[in-house]
Amino acid sequence: MATIKDSVHDHIEIHGVAEQLLDTPPVQRLRRIGQLGTVDLVYPSANHTRFEHSLGVYHLADRALDHLGIEGKQAERVRSAALLHDIGHCPYSHNIEEVLYRYTGKYHDEVHDLIDSGPVAQTLTDAGLNPDRIADLISGEGELGQLVSGELDVDRMDYLVRDAHHTGVPYGTIDHERLIRELRFVDGELVLDENNVQTAESLLLARALMNPTVYQHHVARIAKAMLRRGVERVLAADAADAESLRRMDDYDLLSTLRDCPDSGDIAGRLDSRELFKRALWTELDAVPSELLGADHQEIQSFEREIAAEANVDREAVILDVPSKPEMKESSSRVLVNGEVRTLDEQSTLVTALQQAQRDQWRMGVYAPQNVSERVGTAAVRVLGLDLDGTRIRDVRSGINARLDEFDQ
Amino acid sequence: MATIKDSVHDHIEIHGVAEQLLDTPPVQRLRRIGQLGTVDLVYPSANHTRFEHSLGVYHLADRALDHLGIEGKQAERVRSAALLHDIGHCPYSHNIEEVLYRYTGKYHDEVHDLIDSGPVAQTLTDAGLNPDRIADLISGEGELGQLVSGELDVDRMDYLVRDAHHTGVPYGTIDHERLIRELRFVDGELVLDENNVQTAESLLLARALMNPTVYQHHVARIAKAMLRRGVERVLAADAADAESLRRMDDYDLLSTLRDCPDSGDIAGRLDSRELFKRALWTELDAVPSELLGADHQEIQSFEREIAAEANVDREAVILDVPSKPEMKESSSRVLVNGEVRTLDEQSTLVTALQQAQRDQWRMGVYAPQNVSERVGTAAVRVLGLDLDGTRIRDVRSGINARLDEFDQ
Amino acid sequence: MATIKDSVHDHIEIHGVAEQLLDTPPVQRLRRIGQLGTVDLVYPSANHTRFEHSLGVYHLADRALDHLGIEGKQAERVRSAALLHDIGHCPYSHNIEEVLYRYTGKYHDEVHDLIDSGPVAQTLTDAGLNPDRIADLISGEGELGQLVSGELDVDRMDYLVRDAHHTGVPYGTIDHERLIRELRFVDGELVLDENNVQTAESLLLARALMNPTVYQHHVARIAKAMLRRGVERVLAADAADAESLRRMDDYDLLSTLRDCPDSGDIAGRLDSRELFKRALWTELDAVPSELLGADHQEIQSFEREIAAEANVDREAVILDVPSKPEMKESSSRVLVNGEVRTLDEQSTLVTALQQAQRDQWRMGVYAPQNVSERVGTAAVRVLGLDLDGTRIRDVRSGINARLDEFDQ
Amino acid sequence: MATIKDSVHDHIEIHGVAEQLLDTPPVQRLRRIGQLGTVDLVYPSANHTRFEHSLGVYHLADRALDHLGIEGKQAERVRSAALLHDIGHCPYSHNIEEVLYRYTGKYHDEVHDLIDSGPVAQTLTDAGLNPDRIADLISGEGELGQLVSGELDVDRMDYLVRDAHHTGVPYGTIDHERLIRELRFVDGELVLDENNVQTAESLLLARALMNPTVYQHHVARIAKAMLRRGVERVLAADAADAESLRRMDDYDLLSTLRDCPDSGDIAGRLDSRELFKRALWTELDAVPSELLGADHQEIQSFEREIAAEANVDREAVILDVPSKPEMKESSSRVLVNGEVRTLDEQSTLVTALQQAQRDQWRMGVYAPQNVSERVGTAAVRVLGLDLDGTRIRDVRSGINARLDEFDQ
Repeated sequence: MATIKDSVHDHIEIHGVAEQLLDTPPVQRLRRIGQLGTVDLVYPSANHTRFEHSLGVYHLADRALDHLGIEGKQAERVRSAALLHDIGHCPYSHNIEEVLYRYTGKYHDEVHDLIDSGPVAQTLTDAGLNPDRIADLISGEGELGQLVSGELDVDRMDYLVRDAHHTGVPYGTIDHERLIRELRFVDGELVLDENNVQTAESLLLARALMNPTVYQHHVARIAKAMLRRGVERVLAADAADAESLRRMDDYDLLSTLRDCPDSGDIAGRLDSRELFKRALWTELDAVPSELLGADHQEIQSFEREIAAEANVDREAVILDVPSKPEMKESSSRVLVNGEVRTLDEQSTLVTALQQAQRDQWRMGVYAPQNVSERVGTAAVRVLGLDLDGTRIRDVRSGINARLDEFDQ
Repeated sequence: MATIKDSVHDHIEIHGVAEQLLDTPPVQRLRRIGQLGTVDLVYPSANHTRFEHSLGVYHLADRALDHLGIEGKQAERVRSAALLHDIGHCPYSHNIEEVLYRYTGKYHDEVHDLIDSGPVAQTLTDAGLNPDRIADLISGEGELGQLVSGELDVDRMDYLVRDAHHTGVPYGTIDHERLIRELRFVDGELVLDENNVQTAESLLLARALMNPTVYQHHVARIAKAMLRRGVERVLAADAADAESLRRMDDYDLLSTLRDCPDSGDIAGRLDSRELFKRALWTELDAVPSELLGADHQEIQSFEREIAAEANVDREAVILDVPSKPEMKESSSRVLVNGEVRTLDEQSTLVTALQQAQRDQWRMGVYAPQNVSERVGTAAVRVLGLDLDGTRIRDVRSGINARLDEFDQ
Repeated sequence: MATIKDSVHDHIEIHGVAEQLLDTPPVQRLRRIGQLGTVDLVYPSANHTRFEHSLGVYHLADRALDHLGIEGKQAERVRSAALLHDIGHCPYSHNIEEVLYRYTGKYHDEVHDLIDSGPVAQTLTDAGLNPDRIADLISGEGELGQLVSGELDVDRMDYLVRDAHHTGVPYGTIDHERLIRELRFVDGELVLDENNVQTAESLLLARALMNPTVYQHHVARIAKAMLRRGVERVLAADAADAESLRRMDDYDLLSTLRDCPDSGDIAGRLDSRELFKRALWTELDAVPSELLGADHQEIQSFEREIAAEANVDREAVILDVPSKPEMKESSSRVLVNGEVRTLDEQSTLVTALQQAQRDQWRMGVYAPQNVSERVGTAAVRVLGLDLDGTRIRDVRSGINARLDEFDQ
Repeated sequence: MATIKDSVHDHIEIHGVAEQLLDTPPVQRLRRIGQLGTVDLVYPSANHTRFEHSLGVYHLADRALDHLGIEGKQAERVRSAALLHDIGHCPYSHNIEEVLYRYTGKYHDEVHDLIDSGPVAQTLTDAGLNPDRIADLISGEGELGQLVSGELDVDRMDYLVRDAHHTGVPYGTIDHERLIRELRFVDGELVLDENNVQTAESLLLARALMNPTVYQHHVARIAKAMLRRGVERVLAADAADAESLRRMDDYDLLSTLRDCPDSGDIAGRLDSRELFKRALWTELDAVPSELLGADHQEIQSFEREIAAEANVDREAVILDVPSKPEMKESSSRVLVNGEVRTLDEQSTLVTALQQAQRDQWRMGVYAPQNVSERVGTAAVRVLGLDLDGTRIRDVRSGINARLDEFDQ
């Protein structure tokens, strides 16, 4: 048994097949993938990695299994899935996932191809575990898959606490130990035991507060959009293909961006934190519905139009339209007087949080500082925005005051 | 200048007249008044005192004044008020405040009589400060009074963090440092600066989660109700008068309860944690409105009726009807695009939280375990409750599972 | 199984007979006994109790047993002993233990009489456990007694971390989880496993730093000496006998001190923190050896002489001669290349720490501020001190600067 | 003024010229230089960077200046030096510093060439500050240089606390706030005020415990030695020159190692954590003195001899001879009864710690696992070691048990 010291959970005991899995290159690679991508440009301490997060998820899964009384091979599978659940992440985690998905058709939780062969497959097979079933668990399939990826999974319990610890933003400090202890299976569904409506709410509230403050902070979003743009240029220039980009680590990716002539300027800007600024920052109500449903090519076409209208280089415009807000945790299940209910049936807060999330949604248009105003004006015209009656409310959600001014 | 080590704020610097005030008996007395009264019967680590809390409030006031650029005598007054703001608390803090109010007409923030003479008055006067004006600040009067007692006061910033630290319940962990930094005065009103709607919401959410989990935990409420009953017996037996009870510390009060024959059994039960149980635990909707408005005499009369109906001793029944929920923080003010708005105008969450608080409200009837069922049945009849359609939802809000079962 | 939230160890699971023991009056009484006695007069947040500490010791014992693979009745005995290990403490813990020992012949770890009858005995017997064997474990007897009371016991692991958490002094922050994990039994001796010389040293260093900063802070010592004096007056006045004092809680004791005319002034001084000052504060080398060996009567006789020489009331002089320093942990055992060694054989640091402790030793003479200088001069003469060549070094060990000046 | 959220010091306020310095590429580069190099291979959470550490040092310097009453241009210089103090670090911080020093003649605190021109020089000059004087402060020159680099500098106060926070090892948790508050200048020397012998000792003890547990953990040392070897191959292959290596960040360096054919295998081993093992691990007493004084060429020649003797590839042997232990903090100065003394004059502990450090010193010979035993035997012969009477004591200092076994 290995014992590893962790800054969040103190001592983590690794036992069984997990000890061998830990030594495989796909897991070791997670040491070099930042948990929060570009968020460190807002919160300088946010340098934790997918590796330590994976250890944390393993640890919480192990404890949950213990409380649930699940043992033997079943438990070994869940623990393996917990340790491996993030090996499908591309460099900079979620930041460039959409871009690569357009080329590879795979999101980070689709890991069958990564697990089916190579050292991980070998290790699992040697231990009598079927790699495919582990990959299924990772994508949330089956009863026990809910523990790894679901509304009440141990993944979010670890990341909320860990991200709070490393950013210094206290909002993510949930009572994960209580959550773990109150998990039950009822008719094949993972639920929280009686009297935990509030425990479930606290998980939702933590996410609702961390979201705009950390995960969707506009500076992190701008840097992320620039990173995406850089990767698109690399792909367009054939400097690397999508499948190898997907398997790189943060070190490879940054070097590739620096080395490729078409993306070198973006890499330089990211290195020296000379980021684009917000030319526009718009509420959901002001955005025409066709824009919300636009695919990548339509977005590119809008960007070109805006650039033309503003008379700037086409690369000086980034249009960032997030998908509609959703709050997976609102359908998490709790036991109330012996009945399983979803949280949104039971909690007044959930509807309010869903509305709050809608209110916090923003579409952004980003451009270099010197042309940012021109680009903003052009974007309003090109996108046909109706800004009357909208309130651009509360744009600053972060802490870093210097970075938080509207014009950055 | 004195420097005092604090478990929450690390080093607290006491300067100016506060250093002399610290040595006065009314402030030293706060060392012997628990911050959370009977909550330690649920959370055993909750033994912190009004003294350390007062130091914390002083510290945060000092920092807020610094950020607001308020100096000189004005600042000295606010700091004094911050340090003294709790000297009006009776033993066990809020627990028996209502009882004593019926006799003395004074709540804990009415401290004019305590400050007008004696060592505190002397110390303030020697420093050129008018005791009356300090007392005014403590009751929240005037522009600067908002800092000491108001929707955005430093009092709640300290207690949320401190109570979280000492109970182990993380929900109170707000970003108090950010709150302090973002305070502004606009047209005589204390507001949070631009882009802090979420900061304000986080304060509300922390309270909303701490309330049922800690402050209104049913075991703490039962013990509190027993304590009130004990004090009423002491007063009825003339073993002490209300004004001297108000000035006692926790040590005096517990000794008085133990020594007075009429309250000795209650003291014994509190000492050995043999608490009454919930005979009834009822939602707001099920409670007739005349019960909600009942005064102390009417409550007593109901208790006698229930006891008669259940054929138990009159002292075996406690009826606990909390006042209607209110959420003072919902009218806290934030700057939005240059305008001052109240949080409930601006935040979707606030209305939801007010509803959630209504949902969490409970009326309780408590009785010794052996008669608890009988008393419950009798209470339903006597109070004319309509329990059809009400869901006694989520009665457990605390952590301490053993203590949390419905029948305790 | 009960789960209790703790500010240090988060969730503590109480299972087996411990759940019943928790409800007995002798254990509930520990809620009202401060862990650190008068230390709260230096560190205002140090209000934690023997109750939460006992839960913590129970928790660490449970984990240690788990790591050591000890189960069944043997484990149940150790857990019971851990939970009960402090029920022999008198009010204010160690502060007045010496006084009561002179009358009762019992220290706090001699609990046979407390466990042999009454509810604790009943609970243990019902569970098939022999009360006497539990009492033996509490006094450190037998192989497993080392876990409860010995050089590597879980008692000190809990209190160091807990006292650090509550005072705010970081020095006690040991890696208790590692210590627990590395415990082994070798030939009936509790040792730390290979490669833990440093782990053992860290425990020693934590104590060595906490000692002068917290436990032996001179202000806490003065208050403790005053408390002892008060108890002696109560006993002399027959206001209470030693055996009932031993069974009181802090509330009883303080009330007794306040009510007894002979000790009322001391209680008043403690309440308002008007403490005696150091009239003398002397190193070990300057103290004649007969003084070091003096018994209580000789000490009293010196006090009377000093008072006469200084022409002050006899009660205005307190002579405080601590026992010679010892460092129990220095004989803690570690495995080194397969052999059991004591730490002082193995560690260069231990000898140095023993010397440091000698250096930090101080004899004090305390008196009211207005006569403190006179008493100091008289004490030098009466005690025949040779102050030439001694350095009264580093008298301030605490944090609270205001309280730390030589003349307080 | 910018406010930045930090995981250790919460909010850090950046004001004056520091705000502009923050945006310069040499400071932004520190975001991509790990604080602890290869230590993350032992403690997976140790991913913090020189950037956040530099912000922390800036913050502590600012507070120290405030307490010392130093203002104006003098203070601005010290703050600038604090923020810039680490810009001279090469990638992986200290890990490859020695290698590059052999080529460039510069250690990390020699930054005159980095500050004399370019954006940092420009920013300083614009603010009326002389770059050379800042560089002097960084190398510890002058009275105020002691604050930036000296026995009591704010650098070590930050890194001890930060490294403890991020590794999870509590030993570094010093009371930095107290240290800052107690700093004084006496006759041009930075000292701790009266009564702080123990405060100074605690700083030393923290370092003494962190050293073997974290900084000199053998796994981190092995990885560091491999990294050095990789860099040497890169230099030998002319794949990069020393001056550009010095200015790289961790990303550049790792890519360079991966890309250069001569170092690719080492990069691969580091990536997948297939580290060399200890073939030999030897105490100071067993090491011939000529080996202790050996320069790089002599070391290389020993390595070649060992490889030949063991009949393995020359690259399969790494000889790691650390310099003699020193403990800079032992000459830190404290005020004792008005006189300035160095800590080692005053503290019994210091000598012991120096001895302990000698005891912990280890020379290592590392080799791939499959030839490690052969290499060990050969090394004993070639180096002429006398292992009789030496005790290879306590080789494991870390927490990560799996990684800590002698044969790893």
